[in-house]
Amino acid sequence: MKQKRFILQESELPTAWYNIQADMPVKPLPPIHPATKQPLGVDDLAHIFPRECCVQELDTEHDFIPIPDEVMDKYKAYRSTPLVRAYALEDALQTPAHIYFKNESVNPLGSHKVNSALPQCYYAKQEGTTNVTTETGAGQWGAALAYAASVFGLESAVYQVKISMQQKPYRSSIMRTFGAAVTASPSMSTRAGKDIITRDPNHPGSLGTAISEAVELATTTPNCKYTLGSVLNHVGLHQTIIGLEAEKQMAMAGEYPDVVIACFGGGSNFGGIAFPFMRHNIKDGKTTEFIAAEPESCPKLTRGEFRYDFGDEAGYTPLLPMFTLGHSFKPANIHAGGLRYHGAGMIISQLIKDGLMHGVDIPQLESFEAGLLFARTEGIIPAPESSHAIAAAIREAQKCKQSGEAKVILFNLSGHGLIDMSAYDQYLNGDLMNYRVSDDDIKLTLQSVPQ
Amino acid sequence: MKQKRFILQESELPTAWYNIQADMPVKPLPPIHPATKQPLGVDDLAHIFPRECCVQELDTEHDFIPIPDEVMDKYKAYRSTPLVRAYALEDALQTPAHIYFKNESVNPLGSHKVNSALPQCYYAKQEGTTNVTTETGAGQWGAALAYAASVFGLESAVYQVKISMQQKPYRSSIMRTFGAAVTASPSMSTRAGKDIITRDPNHPGSLGTAISEAVELATTTPNCKYTLGSVLNHVGLHQTIIGLEAEKQMAMAGEYPDVVIACFGGGSNFGGIAFPFMRHNIKDGKTTEFIAAEPESCPKLTRGEFRYDFGDEAGYTPLLPMFTLGHSFKPANIHAGGLRYHGAGMIISQLIKDGLMHGVDIPQLESFEAGLLFARTEGIIPAPESSHAIAAAIREAQKCKQSGEAKVILFNLSGHGLIDMSAYDQYLNGDLMNYRVSDDDIKLTLQSVPQ
Repeated sequence: MKQKRFILQESELPTAWYNIQADMPVKPLPPIHPATKQPLGVDDLAHIFPRECCVQELDTEHDFIPIPDEVMDKYKAYRSTPLVRAYALEDALQTPAHIYFKNESVNPLGSHKVNSALPQCYYAKQEGTTNVTTETGAGQWGAALAYAASVFGLESAVYQVKISMQQKPYRSSIMRTFGAAVTASPSMSTRAGKDIITRDPNHPGSLGTAISEAVELATTTPNCKYTLGSVLNHVGLHQTIIGLEAEKQMAMAGEYPDVVIACFGGGSNFGGIAFPFMRHNIKDGKTTEFIAAEPESCPKLTRGEFRYDFGDEAGYTPLLPMFTLGHSFKPANIHAGGLRYHGAGMIISQLIKDGLMHGVDIPQLESFEAGLLFARTEGIIPAPESSHAIAAAIREAQKCKQSGEAKVILFNLSGHGLIDMSAYDQYLNGDLMNYRVSDDDIKLTLQSVPQ
Repeated sequence: MKQKRFILQESELPTAWYNIQADMPVKPLPPIHPATKQPLGVDDLAHIFPRECCVQELDTEHDFIPIPDEVMDKYKAYRSTPLVRAYALEDALQTPAHIYFKNESVNPLGSHKVNSALPQCYYAKQEGTTNVTTETGAGQWGAALAYAASVFGLESAVYQVKISMQQKPYRSSIMRTFGAAVTASPSMSTRAGKDIITRDPNHPGSLGTAISEAVELATTTPNCKYTLGSVLNHVGLHQTIIGLEAEKQMAMAGEYPDVVIACFGGGSNFGGIAFPFMRHNIKDGKTTEFIAAEPESCPKLTRGEFRYDFGDEAGYTPLLPMFTLGHSFKPANIHAGGLRYHGAGMIISQLIKDGLMHGVDIPQLESFEAGLLFARTEGIIPAPESSHAIAAAIREAQKCKQSGEAKVILFNLSGHGLIDMSAYDQYLNGDLMNYRVSDDDIKLTLQSVPQ
């Protein structure tokens, strides 16, 4: 009988993260100070983030960074996650392609996010911090952070995008179950929130607004550090545990991916699965294709511009070199809340410029159609975010059907959709729609990018 | 570093289920016909259930029954499930006990139920059935059946207990996502449902009412078979894959359980983890203690009587020899919907009579307290049902703390609680209570047991 799942024993787990910055042919541009336009160093960032995270953020020298024992110990509660050959999906598509997925949805928190929440909270605790705060969209990151804070004995406060909290009430319950204080963003509890609500009382919130509020809380509260679930380099670094495992597991399966796919919000799950394989494109002459699947309604990779822009709505963050739609971009209320972000991470943005990867944009209905097919074949209901990766993988598998090529396609199933069932209900009832952004709208919000 | 998780590779998976009936010192009494009082044979049962399930139901000869290749192939999509050493929970309890749990919550459907849904649908398909129907409480079984039916190309219709559907709306969404037709029970779509609603318009439903409706649909619809998620012998048989894996995994950990614990509704997850270990009590002189954790509000094991009773509310089923509270017993609206059943399976009932296992009853608040501690230590939010097993395990671990014994405690984490977050919300808000049944109420409902 054909083997379906490939799992590493604890002794085989990777013990270091992979830092692609050390191997990139062109290093990412540095974050800069909005006023002085000077590059920021560790000291500049460390009043917001745990210092060790800032060191990792700017490290362009070390290709592998050891995972601390205390973090490794927590990883072992759920890692390795399975690599699965999707035979049933292949059959349904009648494709000669070999489709594999890395199943991060069996993490206890239901998504890959916990892979970075654990080290961020560990480093915060190590340097004497007592409180952490963050933003969250759909709530995958917030739930992971609430758990990680609880595990390392920290208090946590989470700003959740208002529209996502309304769409997925169970996620805030999960955060509270782990002991977090949860606030809908924009809120009246911060200066940034009040400003946004004053301008637009019905603002549904976005990752940009929630970041502004969390950063403000961190910078105005003693002993409190801000943590981030994506975008920044150190977050992607922590997520490379996914790809490093997958590399070993693909070897167990006797294959190597021709195509690697992940959905794309800020870049953390994409970088997590892609960077360890991209290393072999850079260093060993491999020719794997890397595809980031973004929503049609928030197309920064395919239709944004490479510029220095703020990471948040209010303009509190450093200026980051990114593919962006402008930090004032207000994404449509799609159910893939984790993908509603205006910009791409610094590493990703440089890799796109250098042609090492590319984006595709997926309409909402195509993503749900793909998610439903995946559920009914593989038995796992995917997060709406992950369904974008599935849709992109299905596109590739269908190309293989036409060309007859038996390509090896690997995608990251970043999370399950069990907290997103209202979205599936709406899809099954025919109540969902696509949201294509007009060129004019993008031109307009790009004006918010500082010159 | 200490190893936490023990996982079997696909080649190490058990390939046969364990049939404890072959080894029981006293065989279970047979099901009998309500009118004739004659024991029922395979032919009598096979107009309701798939025939192969009926053969397994009454098989007291074969100790191991091979798992069909087609079922094995589907098992491999998610098995083995991990055996986990709960170091963090042990630390929190400061107990010398070694606590292990078998993590069935990482099954794609979120609970152990799919282990029996797959073979039941496979056998139904094999004999030419086109439609299957069933009852479900919290919805774990219904979701598993909907998935299994979809996998084997069958149409499925599920009667879900009304109160549970209201408490956990996402579960019916999950069933619909897999293509099932879902109806709240009691409903006006069957004779049985109409009778119940006529007597009690506000009846919240129970597994007993839902079984009546599903059995009626199966017996009045051509090419339709009824499937059951617990209680019957063949269901417990299929679930022994859990304990057979756990046996190998405990050996990997170099330990053998002194105590085996599972929550108890009808007996399937209990039998699943317990029977393979109980075999060694019966045959090899082991002295493991087996504890079934039932809710205080539905205490058939600890306060019911051993009698021949109906398996459903309306009296459509054969008479089964069981510890029962009377088939008219209406359990309180606790959140552990899967444990709201008036009787115990035939094998379990005999094993209790013979002193091979025993029950404990857990108040609702103790179960949630245990579930919250488990979530905050082990990072997994348990199903309210499973929290009863956790509470019983904590009681045993606390006894060890007092006695200084380092007992090895193994419990089955039958499912996750991500669809039950409204229950956690209510618990955190202080809105839940205990429901202790009075002796008079039990005396009253026992009068519904036929003489």
